[in-house]
Amino acid sequence: MREASVNLVTVGVFSWARLEPEPGRYEFGWLDRVLDLLADNGIFADLATATASPPPWLARRNPDSLPVDREGVRLWPGARQHYCPSNKSYRAAATALVEQLATRYCDHRALAMWHVNNEYGCHVAACYCDRSAEHFRAWLRSRYASLAALNEAWGTAFWSQQYGDWDEIVPPRPAPTWRNPSQELDWHRFCSDVLLELFVMERELLERLSSGVPITTNFMRFFKPCDYWKWAEHVDFTADDLYPDPSDAATGARERASAADLMRSLKGGAPWAVMEQAPNAVNWRQRNVPKHPGLMRLGSYQSLARGADGIMFFQWRASKAGAEKFHSGMVPHTGTATRTWREVVELGTELARLDAVVGTRVSADVAFVFDWESRWALELPSKPSHDVTLMDQVAHWYRPLWERNVMVDFVHPEGDLSSYRLVIVPNLYLVTDAAAANVARFVSGGGVFVLSFFSGIVDEREHVRLGGYPAPFRELLGIVVPELWPHGDDELRHVRLGGERYACELWSDWIELEGAEAVATFEDGWLSGRPAVTRNGSAWYVGTRLDSAGMDELVGKLLAQSGVAPTLAAPAGVEAVRRDGDGRSFLFLLNHGAQEATVDIDGDYRDLLTDGERASQLTIEPFGVAVLEAMLRVR
Amino acid sequence: MREASVNLVTVGVFSWARLEPEPGRYEFGWLDRVLDLLADNGIFADLATATASPPPWLARRNPDSLPVDREGVRLWPGARQHYCPSNKSYRAAATALVEQLATRYCDHRALAMWHVNNEYGCHVAACYCDRSAEHFRAWLRSRYASLAALNEAWGTAFWSQQYGDWDEIVPPRPAPTWRNPSQELDWHRFCSDVLLELFVMERELLERLSSGVPITTNFMRFFKPCDYWKWAEHVDFTADDLYPDPSDAATGARERASAADLMRSLKGGAPWAVMEQAPNAVNWRQRNVPKHPGLMRLGSYQSLARGADGIMFFQWRASKAGAEKFHSGMVPHTGTATRTWREVVELGTELARLDAVVGTRVSADVAFVFDWESRWALELPSKPSHDVTLMDQVAHWYRPLWERNVMVDFVHPEGDLSSYRLVIVPNLYLVTDAAAANVARFVSGGGVFVLSFFSGIVDEREHVRLGGYPAPFRELLGIVVPELWPHGDDELRHVRLGGERYACELWSDWIELEGAEAVATFEDGWLSGRPAVTRNGSAWYVGTRLDSAGMDELVGKLLAQSGVAPTLAAPAGVEAVRRDGDGRSFLFLLNHGAQEATVDIDGDYRDLLTDGERASQLTIEPFGVAVLEAMLRVR
Amino acid sequence: MREASVNLVTVGVFSWARLEPEPGRYEFGWLDRVLDLLADNGIFADLATATASPPPWLARRNPDSLPVDREGVRLWPGARQHYCPSNKSYRAAATALVEQLATRYCDHRALAMWHVNNEYGCHVAACYCDRSAEHFRAWLRSRYASLAALNEAWGTAFWSQQYGDWDEIVPPRPAPTWRNPSQELDWHRFCSDVLLELFVMERELLERLSSGVPITTNFMRFFKPCDYWKWAEHVDFTADDLYPDPSDAATGARERASAADLMRSLKGGAPWAVMEQAPNAVNWRQRNVPKHPGLMRLGSYQSLARGADGIMFFQWRASKAGAEKFHSGMVPHTGTATRTWREVVELGTELARLDAVVGTRVSADVAFVFDWESRWALELPSKPSHDVTLMDQVAHWYRPLWERNVMVDFVHPEGDLSSYRLVIVPNLYLVTDAAAANVARFVSGGGVFVLSFFSGIVDEREHVRLGGYPAPFRELLGIVVPELWPHGDDELRHVRLGGERYACELWSDWIELEGAEAVATFEDGWLSGRPAVTRNGSAWYVGTRLDSAGMDELVGKLLAQSGVAPTLAAPAGVEAVRRDGDGRSFLFLLNHGAQEATVDIDGDYRDLLTDGERASQLTIEPFGVAVLEAMLRVR
Repeated sequence: MREASVNLVTVGVFSWARLEPEPGRYEFGWLDRVLDLLADNGIFADLATATASPPPWLARRNPDSLPVDREGVRLWPGARQHYCPSNKSYRAAATALVEQLATRYCDHRALAMWHVNNEYGCHVAACYCDRSAEHFRAWLRSRYASLAALNEAWGTAFWSQQYGDWDEIVPPRPAPTWRNPSQELDWHRFCSDVLLELFVMERELLERLSSGVPITTNFMRFFKPCDYWKWAEHVDFTADDLYPDPSDAATGARERASAADLMRSLKGGAPWAVMEQAPNAVNWRQRNVPKHPGLMRLGSYQSLARGADGIMFFQWRASKAGAEKFHSGMVPHTGTATRTWREVVELGTELARLDAVVGTRVSADVAFVFDWESRWALELPSKPSHDVTLMDQVAHWYRPLWERNVMVDFVHPEGDLSSYRLVIVPNLYLVTDAAAANVARFVSGGGVFVLSFFSGIVDEREHVRLGGYPAPFRELLGIVVPELWPHGDDELRHVRLGGERYACELWSDWIELEGAEAVATFEDGWLSGRPAVTRNGSAWYVGTRLDSAGMDELVGKLLAQSGVAPTLAAPAGVEAVRRDGDGRSFLFLLNHGAQEATVDIDGDYRDLLTDGERASQLTIEPFGVAVLEAMLRVR
Repeated sequence: MREASVNLVTVGVFSWARLEPEPGRYEFGWLDRVLDLLADNGIFADLATATASPPPWLARRNPDSLPVDREGVRLWPGARQHYCPSNKSYRAAATALVEQLATRYCDHRALAMWHVNNEYGCHVAACYCDRSAEHFRAWLRSRYASLAALNEAWGTAFWSQQYGDWDEIVPPRPAPTWRNPSQELDWHRFCSDVLLELFVMERELLERLSSGVPITTNFMRFFKPCDYWKWAEHVDFTADDLYPDPSDAATGARERASAADLMRSLKGGAPWAVMEQAPNAVNWRQRNVPKHPGLMRLGSYQSLARGADGIMFFQWRASKAGAEKFHSGMVPHTGTATRTWREVVELGTELARLDAVVGTRVSADVAFVFDWESRWALELPSKPSHDVTLMDQVAHWYRPLWERNVMVDFVHPEGDLSSYRLVIVPNLYLVTDAAAANVARFVSGGGVFVLSFFSGIVDEREHVRLGGYPAPFRELLGIVVPELWPHGDDELRHVRLGGERYACELWSDWIELEGAEAVATFEDGWLSGRPAVTRNGSAWYVGTRLDSAGMDELVGKLLAQSGVAPTLAAPAGVEAVRRDGDGRSFLFLLNHGAQEATVDIDGDYRDLLTDGERASQLTIEPFGVAVLEAMLRVR
Repeated sequence: MREASVNLVTVGVFSWARLEPEPGRYEFGWLDRVLDLLADNGIFADLATATASPPPWLARRNPDSLPVDREGVRLWPGARQHYCPSNKSYRAAATALVEQLATRYCDHRALAMWHVNNEYGCHVAACYCDRSAEHFRAWLRSRYASLAALNEAWGTAFWSQQYGDWDEIVPPRPAPTWRNPSQELDWHRFCSDVLLELFVMERELLERLSSGVPITTNFMRFFKPCDYWKWAEHVDFTADDLYPDPSDAATGARERASAADLMRSLKGGAPWAVMEQAPNAVNWRQRNVPKHPGLMRLGSYQSLARGADGIMFFQWRASKAGAEKFHSGMVPHTGTATRTWREVVELGTELARLDAVVGTRVSADVAFVFDWESRWALELPSKPSHDVTLMDQVAHWYRPLWERNVMVDFVHPEGDLSSYRLVIVPNLYLVTDAAAANVARFVSGGGVFVLSFFSGIVDEREHVRLGGYPAPFRELLGIVVPELWPHGDDELRHVRLGGERYACELWSDWIELEGAEAVATFEDGWLSGRPAVTRNGSAWYVGTRLDSAGMDELVGKLLAQSGVAPTLAAPAGVEAVRRDGDGRSFLFLLNHGAQEATVDIDGDYRDLLTDGERASQLTIEPFGVAVLEAMLRVR
């Protein structure tokens, strides 16, 4: 570890069975030795609470602690995460363990932070057992207070679903056909909340017994089951697990970029940490291609550039047994005479030179509105098109901005938009009154706003907002959409936008103008001649899914109107990001291309990795990076 | 509703929970008000018995009332139709409700008819619980009387399945491999019968308590689980739910046509009703494209032309909550300032002019033999080719007749064929002795008969008829098929028919002539030179699946031999249908094309929609219709 | 049967319910009559123990005797093989039946052999019920003696899986994610062993009560769930069920060839029997194409050529009821006026002339190392590529040898390799120390050895052999593979081998030479310029999956180095195999082509089927065969 300049390691994530081999009998000796050894070598510990995988004895003594899937199949020990989040035996056993750990190690000189549980909800995001049903009912009572309110919110007049007693309510278990969508939406909320309840249960113990030590858990990018806006309030900083597929490096780089933007945005721009990434290949896809030379370094710098203050890996050493033995480790099966180890050591050596970057921040003029509740609702079945999914639309909008080096934040629909010039809202199917008002305030303040199709359709109960889509935004946008026109399979249509013809797919809206102007017009099909994209002052609406070239054209218009400029005018494939703070400014340049790239830079700067000073032009090797500190401010 | 000339509405289909919010406590006030309001406005009610979706309290008090799927998974409340059809609690509760409804509303001035339950079997066509097993055994005892008879019928000598006690018999639950096919076939029969038993249970109550009011339920085209030949005996008229996919209008029009022909045929040609169709899009396909302008009207007239006396919709108003909120309504979310509403109003206005059509009938010279029992048997596994399915074959034969405007009826295999000139029998895999004799009588009476491959294979027990396929028709056809030659995946072969070469796919028969002549011959593969289509007087056999052009050629020959003429020689894409009665004759012309069509018509007629008189030629707009009443009979 | 020269028939396989219609009451009269009738006509019986399908009464009286699948779904009666292999009621009932049969028929003059059960594991290769769990634990106790040993072997330190009590262990039931792979591997071993335990249970009874009568059961080619190396020790001779798909005759012929080689090799080269093959089509594929004229005869001779001494069929007569009624029989539904029956009679007549072949043997210079344990481990999930499967790799290596008429044996990794010149080891992922030493001995003795990628990776516990792949063979091969580079979907790369360029797919290795030379080199991608195939003296390594042309080239080099010659230089599509014994030598020539083939043969020989003597050239009809006995030895 010292050879690789490692200074922080996660310890004990799946060690419950070794720490407590039988109920109430603890074996801490081995962990004492590990932590002492780390401390003796100047390495800190991200100490895990080890509650993510209960020991086999818990399931044997408390079979009800095992989770049950939607079809009623019990999930057994033999893997990990085999617990019902609502189960009382699990909670009691986990609490006892955390109490022991916190008491024993709160003052250990290696302890840098607490790592609570692990990847909450990764395999078991929901349990459908009877105890979970009971817990769901309690949660619903607390949300709705009265059955009448629940019946109204769930629209139980439809299909004879009116409840006369709380005990009649069950989770959305298998049913003859589609379950009540409001029930499903509340189930999503409940499942995120019940996992968060587990986190808070441990956090409160740790705060009490190990006061002052930072506490976090590892998020998983845009993980659907957990509403990280709510979660982020309870972690001291965000930490992310980052596993884009190296077989498609371009997509992977974009996914890594947007994940960083989310992690940063979840805590209002504060630095975050890469908690896990693979040194090389993973083992859980159908085909697991390696990270080619340079790719791991490039990705690490990309996270750093976009606001991370720490770069960690899963895992230190590739294990020789178990279900993850073909997941790469910093120390591979072959040992240290390997490319992987060399790259790890080089990265560690370089990172030691970048201490000045720590604590600096990234700023953005563009915001994406992103909401878990709307996503859950959008992706429930019985919709006009089941092929409209949120992450697809977010990625479709994110790409043209990322490729132009325009930095973006993510914002909750009810979050503060006042610092942005351009707000992009892809498919905000569900919108609260407060969120609609929030957007209206932004636009009335002069901001440029763009909304994509199938937005503003329902409220937080999944009730359609009547009177013409997208009801809460109609006046702002100066349009009405009386009919939704999803495309059939593989059905392409075309629009004319700015003199050019572009394809569009997936969805079209029948738009009637009520004050707006048509920026683009459908050219074929039954909607031919009708508007496809509209503008009402600074409020834009996009009633279809344009192809990539169309998106580039459209985004260009939006940036022009909002006056947003890129971080740097760099060649295609070169990502440029700036971090600032304490009067210092750092420019990260990342060459995602397989060819050398030459970047023009105006002003004086110091190259932190080579320690050289340069001016005017910089050449970056394929998959290479540069970190420059401005002497005079670069433009 | 008055604006749209609505005169009949279905009320209360999923209202059980509102009518009986707790067991035995009824709330009829709201329904009284609805029915009074309708009556006050001259609108009649198709009053539902509301038994299709039990209230949540039934499941909580009687968990056994919930259905269980084949894998043993219980289906929970939260959707609809969550009841085991054999369950006694459900039956008792449903009976009590219907008794209340019938007693209260039997004399209401709005009451036009009773709508029993809803779409029987739509989601739960079979329940595999222990009570259903018991019920199945009782049904089997009644069918077979002795275990020895059952053992013989099921061929239990095979695979050591001989039963020694009735209680050893279970439904076809999951098994290590294919279940006994005779058991599976009887299970299909039982499941259709047990649902019909529910209908009859309600019908008997209604007949007793609300004498003289017509009773029906909504069928679903060629719905596989229910043998509508048996069901039709118990409804006062047939009513259908019609949801062809608007994304493929040509296929949809054909499906709508054949569904109409079935509904008419089920009650011997009597008028029927469209009980449900969508005013615009549905919400339950992967991608739900709208009905383009004119398509809903065109489809409505098509049903009318083919014998319907009523056109109804699901649903009046698009709901704002629940699992069907994106199913179109006559009143959309956007309200009445919409194309949908305009089309609804126009249709209502027009239909008011067509009262004279009510009660008239459609007649056909061609019959398709269609049988649910044979379909169930054909589509069981462990067949020579699992890709031979009945509806595919029926559609393949139906298309060339429909495109030529040759009207067809559907007939049960043992039904009266005497009024037809041509009888088409696609894939009648299972055939009873009586059905075989029925066909022989038809042919000996001079009728033209055509049988397609893999027919006449088994009897009603699913026992192969030995001695050479198709055993009961061999003599009639003058052939024997010693071997079946299903094609491999994507394997095309070719035949020569009438001097032309046509492709054939899916299946070929090795045919030996025993008196017949070869009308078409295989041109390639191992069967090269052998007969593909044969004729023995007026009895034809088609030993393969010809391509569309081949079917056109073949059907032309069959029509020529049988002397059947089309309703009208119309341009391609124009459907022409005649309804007659009481000395009046109506000609419906439906333009399915996207271009104007000009139809030559001989004779005087009156155009009922425009009220104009015309002669010789009529031009119909794209997707337009005309309804003509003959002054002199058109030819 | 006499018309078809049948001299051995399998009797009673699924007759338990008829033999014992209620517990303890036996009805043997019908079987007495069948066996007497056979004996009276000079036909012997392969008498089945009838235990493969329990009667319905067993399940009703002992519901726990029904098997349970991985998801916990009970498998019910109605098909066959519905028993838990560990269930005591089943075992007791089966034992009682076998005791009755053996006692009654041990001395019957028709009895030639015992057919135990049927196709063990065909539908139910594993049961996950509680009794099976208990049995699994007993098996594990016996394998590991201590929990500490099991914990070490299963690597339970990973993911908190350490067991503190034997009773905590369950079968690999559904779990939140991948189950422990060592647990899964032991489960495969257990499931094979528990089925074998059933066979041995019956065998011991038969040996005691019916001493001297040969005992076997029907294997199913390379059936994954059963380790036939272990099973073969317990059968008196191997018997195989052979059902390659006739829709792809070329693949089918190769599969039939390799199955024969396996059956022969399982008992050290001793003759074996075709226990089942279809006279014509089967009924259990999606589309079941017939065997075209000549194909059944050709396949039968192919088995004979490759060492079979008996050719049997499933089934005698096509049944008229049940789940296999469309499986062809020697007597079809149509009867004996059929091609199928004519071909059966012709084959029977011919085989009567080949008595001299019985007992002769096939010999090979090339061995394929094949191991069930390695296959089980390889095909568990969480691997670098889930698309690497063993049979695909075996077939890929087998084809070029089979096409060149080079005979091969299969050998267990620890089996005797001393008689071979060339040993081919495709994907031996799991390798024991003993196996590695076995190979090393072979190479040090001068043998040519070739190993393909992803071999030698783990030991018998599924623990990675550390220090660089393929650890136990590194020294032998003179290479190290520090990284595995599975390809992405559809990713083709290329190699240069012997001056030509070939595609490769699926997988590449990053190979470092440590003494070996590069025989082929990657030409593109990140591994460009690195070795793809290496040679270290007579030890070869192939680090990718070459295309077919590349395999032909490579196999040519291997045969050249090892000095292995084909049986005969025959035209493409003509298979040539020799059987020798007692100083006589038989040459089988099989024309798999649709055209006549002319084979040059040197030396005098007698054609056993035509009884003619010929020299120099022989012309074989399409799909035809010749069996020649050498007068002078052919070369």
